[in-house]
Amino acid sequence: MHNTIAKGFRAAAVLAGIKKKTGKDLGLIYSEIPADAAAVFTRNRVLAAPVLVDKEKIKSGKCQAVIVNSGNANCCTGGQGIQDAFSMCRATAQALGISEELVYAASTGVIGQPMPITKVLHAVPGLVEALRAEKAGGRDDFARAIMTTDLVPKVFSLPGEIRGKRFRITGIAKGSGMIRPDMATMLCFVCTDAEVPSRFLQESLSLAADCSFNRITVDGDTSTNDMVLLMANGMSGAKIGTEADREIFQSLLNDVLLSLAKMIVKDGEGASKLVEIIVQGAASDADARKVADTIAHSSLVKTALFGEDANWGRILAAAGRAGVPIEPDRVDIRFNDVLMAENGMSCGDAAEAAATEILKMPEFAIVTDLKSGKGRASVFTCDFSVEYVRINADYRT
Amino acid sequence: MHNTIAKGFRAAAVLAGIKKKTGKDLGLIYSEIPADAAAVFTRNRVLAAPVLVDKEKIKSGKCQAVIVNSGNANCCTGGQGIQDAFSMCRATAQALGISEELVYAASTGVIGQPMPITKVLHAVPGLVEALRAEKAGGRDDFARAIMTTDLVPKVFSLPGEIRGKRFRITGIAKGSGMIRPDMATMLCFVCTDAEVPSRFLQESLSLAADCSFNRITVDGDTSTNDMVLLMANGMSGAKIGTEADREIFQSLLNDVLLSLAKMIVKDGEGASKLVEIIVQGAASDADARKVADTIAHSSLVKTALFGEDANWGRILAAAGRAGVPIEPDRVDIRFNDVLMAENGMSCGDAAEAAATEILKMPEFAIVTDLKSGKGRASVFTCDFSVEYVRINADYRT
Repeated sequence: MHNTIAKGFRAAAVLAGIKKKTGKDLGLIYSEIPADAAAVFTRNRVLAAPVLVDKEKIKSGKCQAVIVNSGNANCCTGGQGIQDAFSMCRATAQALGISEELVYAASTGVIGQPMPITKVLHAVPGLVEALRAEKAGGRDDFARAIMTTDLVPKVFSLPGEIRGKRFRITGIAKGSGMIRPDMATMLCFVCTDAEVPSRFLQESLSLAADCSFNRITVDGDTSTNDMVLLMANGMSGAKIGTEADREIFQSLLNDVLLSLAKMIVKDGEGASKLVEIIVQGAASDADARKVADTIAHSSLVKTALFGEDANWGRILAAAGRAGVPIEPDRVDIRFNDVLMAENGMSCGDAAEAAATEILKMPEFAIVTDLKSGKGRASVFTCDFSVEYVRINADYRT
Repeated sequence: MHNTIAKGFRAAAVLAGIKKKTGKDLGLIYSEIPADAAAVFTRNRVLAAPVLVDKEKIKSGKCQAVIVNSGNANCCTGGQGIQDAFSMCRATAQALGISEELVYAASTGVIGQPMPITKVLHAVPGLVEALRAEKAGGRDDFARAIMTTDLVPKVFSLPGEIRGKRFRITGIAKGSGMIRPDMATMLCFVCTDAEVPSRFLQESLSLAADCSFNRITVDGDTSTNDMVLLMANGMSGAKIGTEADREIFQSLLNDVLLSLAKMIVKDGEGASKLVEIIVQGAASDADARKVADTIAHSSLVKTALFGEDANWGRILAAAGRAGVPIEPDRVDIRFNDVLMAENGMSCGDAAEAAATEILKMPEFAIVTDLKSGKGRASVFTCDFSVEYVRINADYRT
């Protein structure tokens, strides 16, 4: 079962020549039968053409295939961009011999350049042929083809069981450099062979996104192309019926999405550390989230993480400008279990030495305890490196 | 008149040994007679000890001297920090032979480390001696002594005239790396020998700060130590009485503060470009400001500026997540007078080539026209460089 997707799903990728760099750049996921589908989209006011197209398609609640290109975002491309997105879907539907309404499109790459649609359309028949011939490598080929500044492909798959029937949830994502949430497009395609009531599908996906991708993003800050698409084809025979079934499914879906979200942060452009920012003791969960987001996005905090500097003063200063009331002289700050600052003051050189050891680790948590309530939030961030600037300064050149 | 301050003001600096790096780190500004004073302070919830102390003192509306150290922010230092700030004022007042209430303190540097108060107190008599002996170099000595990651000292001085009486406004500032507003403390000391009615002084300073320092910062995001102090000793004999006088004074004060604010952006940590972000055609000025701030703080936009890449798609994507309604297909984007995108779409290769030439300049403007109203705003930003990360990763080490 290595390198497979859930039952009845196949994936493939080819080189269409869209990306400047070499490598496959056009991928396809296909379900043998039409699947129930749900999706969440970017909240940016500027929407890429494929997002506009898919937002209409998802109203049917059905999807059988999605074609995805990297190298061009098909965003800020006007009416022609919309036509190009529809053309991608249509050509794929024709080659697959299925209804055009069941085929979705997604794009990631540079904004504001016309889609090289001729190259894409030219590559579609070969892509469908590759899918038909596909044995085992298609899933990882697909995961690689949708990468832009990603350094590693991102696939995560978990099995589940409902009344003796085994099923699987497989997610494939791309995204990197979520140093700020506007850093890169995040795409995620989730396939499950469980049968999920369509009314539950959207709610389940939204919940899972909130506890995963939305913890590495903030305040609706998203790219123009972000989307998560969930397809459930029911081919395992496992039927999500009771509340207990739903809990099992939700828990697995959460795990798949959170694992992918962490992979995205870890693959942050130039990032070397995955850091969980936990804020507790706030007046409310919402307040805790505001403080956590402000810390997680502070360039000063993130450069200190890169420098492996236990600069808790920057953490407290970020908390202080999060727009929620805090009492600085009550705040404790921990690096994992090392208490670095207590009641807003340093715990001294020994604490700093111990905290510095924590900072050398590839993964750790920073806990900021406001000691003023029961509100709690946790988000994920990474360090901010010299390499990040290099990657983003040179992205188009 | 080169290297002087307004009449009756003197400045000096000495080495107290607070900074790790060599160089003077303790400065003093003094007025021969008590001056009327106004101040604006950081809106961060975490306030450094000298800010807490000065906020009380300014209620009197009078100030005769301010002592400023670099190398330690005296922030998150508890009750001891407050005592240390008072001690600085007291020792200075004693050495100057003036009332303690008339002496203010300011600090900039690392947060959360105890103030090396013994070193400071030990250096105060020498500082006052240097002030007494001061001929011409004191102003620039002071400007250099308050620098932290600043690369250049920041002084700007303008003359004015009211009914034949000449006066002067001199500002001395420190601050760099306002890449995000939390990047560094901004301190500014403004001295004028005009006589300004005290009820007008605060209003005038607040107005000037809004059109200068508050255009390089956002949403109340400030460091723990930020302050701008304005002292007016009236020693020129120029008296601000009529509305026309006020306009003259306000205009000069605005110019002094805006010039210093631009110097701070230009000296942004590792920055090589000063870029004015102009947003027009918004539904309101407030909406325009939100969009301008989002563009000005986008790491993606700023790294593209560093890379001299006319990546207008990142500008439009930032506008799209600013939290105000925009119609992407109406938006025009200009680099100076080069129209790069019209109605949300690229103007093509020739436009890009021309825009790229603009991006090579040390100063230019990016104009985003939403074409949906009359709201307008302008803020200043700089590029985001590899050097920035280096500076901030290594700051304490």
